[in-house]
Amino acid sequence: MTNIQGIAASSGIAIAKAYQLVTPDLSYEKREVENPEQEVERLESALEISKQELEKIKAHTQQELGDEHAEIFSAHLLVLGDPELINPIKDKINNDKSMAEAALEETANMFISMFESMDNEYMRERAADIKDVTKRVMAHLQGVNFPNPALIDEEVVVIASDLTPSDTAQLNREFVKGFATDIGGRTSHSAIMARSLEIPAVVGTKDVTSRISQNDLLIIDGIDGNVIINPSEEELSSYRDKQANFEKQKEIWAQLKDEPTFTSDGEQVELVANIGTPEDVAGVINNGGEGVGLYRTEFLYMGKSELPSEDEQYKAYKSVLEQMGDKPVVVRTLDVGGDKELPYLDLPKELNPFLGFRAIRFCLENEHVFRPQLRALLRASVHGNLKIMFPMIASLEEFRQAKAILLDEKENLKNEGIEVSNSIEVGIMVEIPSTAVIAKQFAKEVDFFSIGTNDLIQYTMAADRMNEQVSYLYQPYHPAILNLVNNVIEAAHSEGKWAGMCGEMAGDSIAIPILIGLGLDEFSMSATSILPARTQITKLSKKEMASYKEKLLSMATAEDVIEFIKDKTE
Amino acid sequence: MTNIQGIAASSGIAIAKAYQLVTPDLSYEKREVENPEQEVERLESALEISKQELEKIKAHTQQELGDEHAEIFSAHLLVLGDPELINPIKDKINNDKSMAEAALEETANMFISMFESMDNEYMRERAADIKDVTKRVMAHLQGVNFPNPALIDEEVVVIASDLTPSDTAQLNREFVKGFATDIGGRTSHSAIMARSLEIPAVVGTKDVTSRISQNDLLIIDGIDGNVIINPSEEELSSYRDKQANFEKQKEIWAQLKDEPTFTSDGEQVELVANIGTPEDVAGVINNGGEGVGLYRTEFLYMGKSELPSEDEQYKAYKSVLEQMGDKPVVVRTLDVGGDKELPYLDLPKELNPFLGFRAIRFCLENEHVFRPQLRALLRASVHGNLKIMFPMIASLEEFRQAKAILLDEKENLKNEGIEVSNSIEVGIMVEIPSTAVIAKQFAKEVDFFSIGTNDLIQYTMAADRMNEQVSYLYQPYHPAILNLVNNVIEAAHSEGKWAGMCGEMAGDSIAIPILIGLGLDEFSMSATSILPARTQITKLSKKEMASYKEKLLSMATAEDVIEFIKDKTE
Repeated sequence: MTNIQGIAASSGIAIAKAYQLVTPDLSYEKREVENPEQEVERLESALEISKQELEKIKAHTQQELGDEHAEIFSAHLLVLGDPELINPIKDKINNDKSMAEAALEETANMFISMFESMDNEYMRERAADIKDVTKRVMAHLQGVNFPNPALIDEEVVVIASDLTPSDTAQLNREFVKGFATDIGGRTSHSAIMARSLEIPAVVGTKDVTSRISQNDLLIIDGIDGNVIINPSEEELSSYRDKQANFEKQKEIWAQLKDEPTFTSDGEQVELVANIGTPEDVAGVINNGGEGVGLYRTEFLYMGKSELPSEDEQYKAYKSVLEQMGDKPVVVRTLDVGGDKELPYLDLPKELNPFLGFRAIRFCLENEHVFRPQLRALLRASVHGNLKIMFPMIASLEEFRQAKAILLDEKENLKNEGIEVSNSIEVGIMVEIPSTAVIAKQFAKEVDFFSIGTNDLIQYTMAADRMNEQVSYLYQPYHPAILNLVNNVIEAAHSEGKWAGMCGEMAGDSIAIPILIGLGLDEFSMSATSILPARTQITKLSKKEMASYKEKLLSMATAEDVIEFIKDKTE
Repeated sequence: MTNIQGIAASSGIAIAKAYQLVTPDLSYEKREVENPEQEVERLESALEISKQELEKIKAHTQQELGDEHAEIFSAHLLVLGDPELINPIKDKINNDKSMAEAALEETANMFISMFESMDNEYMRERAADIKDVTKRVMAHLQGVNFPNPALIDEEVVVIASDLTPSDTAQLNREFVKGFATDIGGRTSHSAIMARSLEIPAVVGTKDVTSRISQNDLLIIDGIDGNVIINPSEEELSSYRDKQANFEKQKEIWAQLKDEPTFTSDGEQVELVANIGTPEDVAGVINNGGEGVGLYRTEFLYMGKSELPSEDEQYKAYKSVLEQMGDKPVVVRTLDVGGDKELPYLDLPKELNPFLGFRAIRFCLENEHVFRPQLRALLRASVHGNLKIMFPMIASLEEFRQAKAILLDEKENLKNEGIEVSNSIEVGIMVEIPSTAVIAKQFAKEVDFFSIGTNDLIQYTMAADRMNEQVSYLYQPYHPAILNLVNNVIEAAHSEGKWAGMCGEMAGDSIAIPILIGLGLDEFSMSATSILPARTQITKLSKKEMASYKEKLLSMATAEDVIEFIKDKTE
């Protein structure tokens, strides 16, 4: 057996055979064609198999993840059926006596380079679609199996270099028991996805794909970050015990599913979840979430060729609000730019996109994008307990301007005779240092704060969290971060407002005791982290944790903080 | 007359005729060559004129600005004399009966695209050299004058789209009375250069180059940011008065040249200068600088093909220290990365370079770069009053690590029998929010702070200061910045240390009263800002300014701060 160490990205133990999600070798040897008709038939048969596969995948994705996620496969099907692409391939076979593989490749490449050369994100996406589809057809021409994670029909653990959003969208939750990847960290897309799918995952193993063969038996230990290849009977039995213990642990957690969250000395806090789509709400409820602390609305705008309409947005917001009943739902307005691009918006290319024209900065300059979202939110407000939150606020002027637009649209809706709730709280993300520093001034005007630690840490440390060479500076426990968080909480309370946190830090077992001590009111995290967090909090004394506050805030380094907390909570 | 509004970048009034620093049209009509020998002669004569020009420029630059600045012209001369470039041009003329222009262009383009395609910054710089030289030779082939700002021999004001470092290096200080550019802001290279050359400048006019003809008479009003084209007699006389008043003002300022700096209620502060090379020291002394608050050592590393040697650095540091006598000289260790690239270091390409692997982050990982600089500084320390400052410190661990390396090299030098001063203060730049927030913890370990506002503002506001779309967020008077600055000063004083500032803010007339009130000890600015600042400070009561502190720190917006200060100081 071999043991590969990686980063524990999603808790639990999975034991199943490996499914390698890697593109097969699609190279071929060129030969002259005697019988073009036969080649055209080969092509048509490969197109037909591809089409059937894509339709299966599309239907499956639609059912599992909703229409939005399935859209990419509609795009692929359109490419497959496009005579402007298919006819030139056939012509090439007939006229040049090309073999089908070569005719496909040359024609596709011509379109791909044409689309890529256009300075337009939308056309570049079409180029990517053609690439994807061509690979699939090429595989079937050569009788090679193309990996279709959506069509997995036996229990497996998926092994991949990395999982893209479209890969994970296709995973069949029934049969995929876990996964391991070469690259990524705890905050990478695949890690967040694994936690939301509630399957064990180990990421950042560096070379798992090259060390595993199809059908190897694997253990994925998402608790300690290990992948064990072809384990011995002894190891299997030991990991089955670990698995059983974890399941038992989950049952204990589950006992708190419908309970409120109290510390051991009887102080209540709120544990809520981060979501991206209305489909995620089921997971929030199943995991005992007391609300939604961060609804990222970007997904409504992504994978599309144009802005979502006001009605489309209204339906999504209404669905989330209705599903959550009277529980609070904090919706963050559009946060584009930075690492999130929208092809149809033509955002500027920037030297430092994380310090650039994004989120509220973009929305305030593009009211034709901002106003329909606010209208959709206001219209949906009557269906539940809505709170609206503006991202990337750096100055009070920005908040005032955003709120004025919101009130203006409220007025407009009333004049149109449309009902709007009168109890919508309007707050901000605190993710820019300037706002954390003058939280007291903000607290007089906002209804609540939600601290976005992922960005707050990267700006406070001046270190891009995606850049591996400075990743050592991404320090959630740096005393400066604790001081800023404390400043925000104190400011909120001094004005009778509440303060939450919606970054990864809110669900972290070392951060939780500190945050309890600082008096954080609301913790928003991955749905699956809620029950372990609740279990942890029931054992913590707020009074004790608060007594460490001054000491923690005056510490010199993140190391000192971690050591102290581990010592006090073990 | 026409009046063009721009940004006042360097004070004073200049009146002279326009010198347009723009590349002439070098297109030519192709024709067949009858007599190749004659073409080769034409080529050789153009090469010869170019060579003579470049040698004049080089000698001039050497004399005015030192060897370092002249190096680029040595590189150009090398290109001109390189048979590997020149012979193929001659061959083309002789064999293909090409005209000299075409032979030059085609051969140069071949080398340029060859060098540019190599993924190597050094080779790409060689490509840029060939481009520059080719343009010059092409101009002389066509009998067109190529602009040589170094060779200007009558009084002019220079008009350009923008001035690059190599352009400004060539300006003849004797005859260039001022300049105006299309692009740039107060912190752009050309603006900083103008202040260091002490000539009036207006930048960011958008279109001054296209609205002016060679030999137009111009007034550059660097006080209010105006360019007046072909003024009337009346205007001329009014601006001559303004000029005289400004000169009188300068004389008043000059009375304070050798004075210390006291507020009206007798509190002393220190006014020091930012410099980039040993040649800048003369300006510091002429302008009454009480020391050097920031010696940017990057220039030693720039425009080179390899690292400067320890000895080369030692000589530069020694020269600055000796010139400054017993006055303090704060040297910042290498700050590369971000927007400053060094071709021979092969720094990584980054998605967000301002949040990336730069300055101390780079030096701690590259001790072969860091240690020679520290050794050179330690060796130079016996020649004056040296203080060493580390840039981009985000955590105490980084400071401790950098200081440990410094002490290690001090030990090494002692073991080698080399004398090192024992009274070198070791401090840090405060330009990352985390460090400003926990300044109190830092103050126990560092000898001093120097607040680098340019970066501190951009990180605190999460807004790239080079990105025009978010430039409205570059707010020096944002109350968060004032709170952080105050926090740093209070922390320093609580441990008996001193706090300075070396960003643009330190020389700003609105910031100065605030900073006096917050208790800043040392103000480091462009040398030419020192006397106006001293004049302003002598009129300010520290006690009065300190009485506004709490009010300023609790203000909501930058606008509120500016309005308040203007009201209190007018």
